[in-house]
Amino acid sequence: MAKVVVNVMPKTEILDPQGQAIVGVLGRLGFGGISDVRQGKRFEIEVDDGVADEKIAEIAESLLANTVIEDWSVSREATEEHP
Amino acid sequence: MAKVVVNVMPKTEILDPQGQAIVGVLGRLGFGGISDVRQGKRFEIEVDDGVADEKIAEIAESLLANTVIEDWSVSREATEEHP
Repeated sequence: MAKVVVNVMPKTEILDPQGQAIVGVLGRLGFGGISDVRQGKRFEIEVDDGVADEKIAEIAESLLANTVIEDWSVSREATEEHP
Repeated sequence: MAKVVVNVMPKTEILDPQGQAIVGVLGRLGFGGISDVRQGKRFEIEVDDGVADEKIAEIAESLLANTVIEDWSVSREATEEHP
């Protein structure tokens, strides 16, 4: 068993209204120094050890991301990161 | 300027219907070896260098995550990761 993480983010040239809303709220709440927020998705996938990275990439590209407006990246996590 | 990433994931004890739906679809499409998927959120935040990690943690805990059902983690990214 391995944990694979797929990150899906809006492309940089695509406007991200959710992120912009967060920037606006942070400013009004007095949190300074935040110039940009972009909101995307994170998928944590438990895969059998025999599943190749190419298969994960195929899943990410065909199912998890809308490649017209979103970029994706795949990374394998060695350790648990949510304490 | 630094890029900070906040990951927000459903707590392990919370059912994740979106993730379960993805597991079901992957099985029907013939992608084997996937035992679990959990879907969460990823925020990429551009902050000034003077913004402390504690401030980011405060933002994550009070605004970005619903701590009743979600865990969050903060990491600073050294390099661009979306090619």
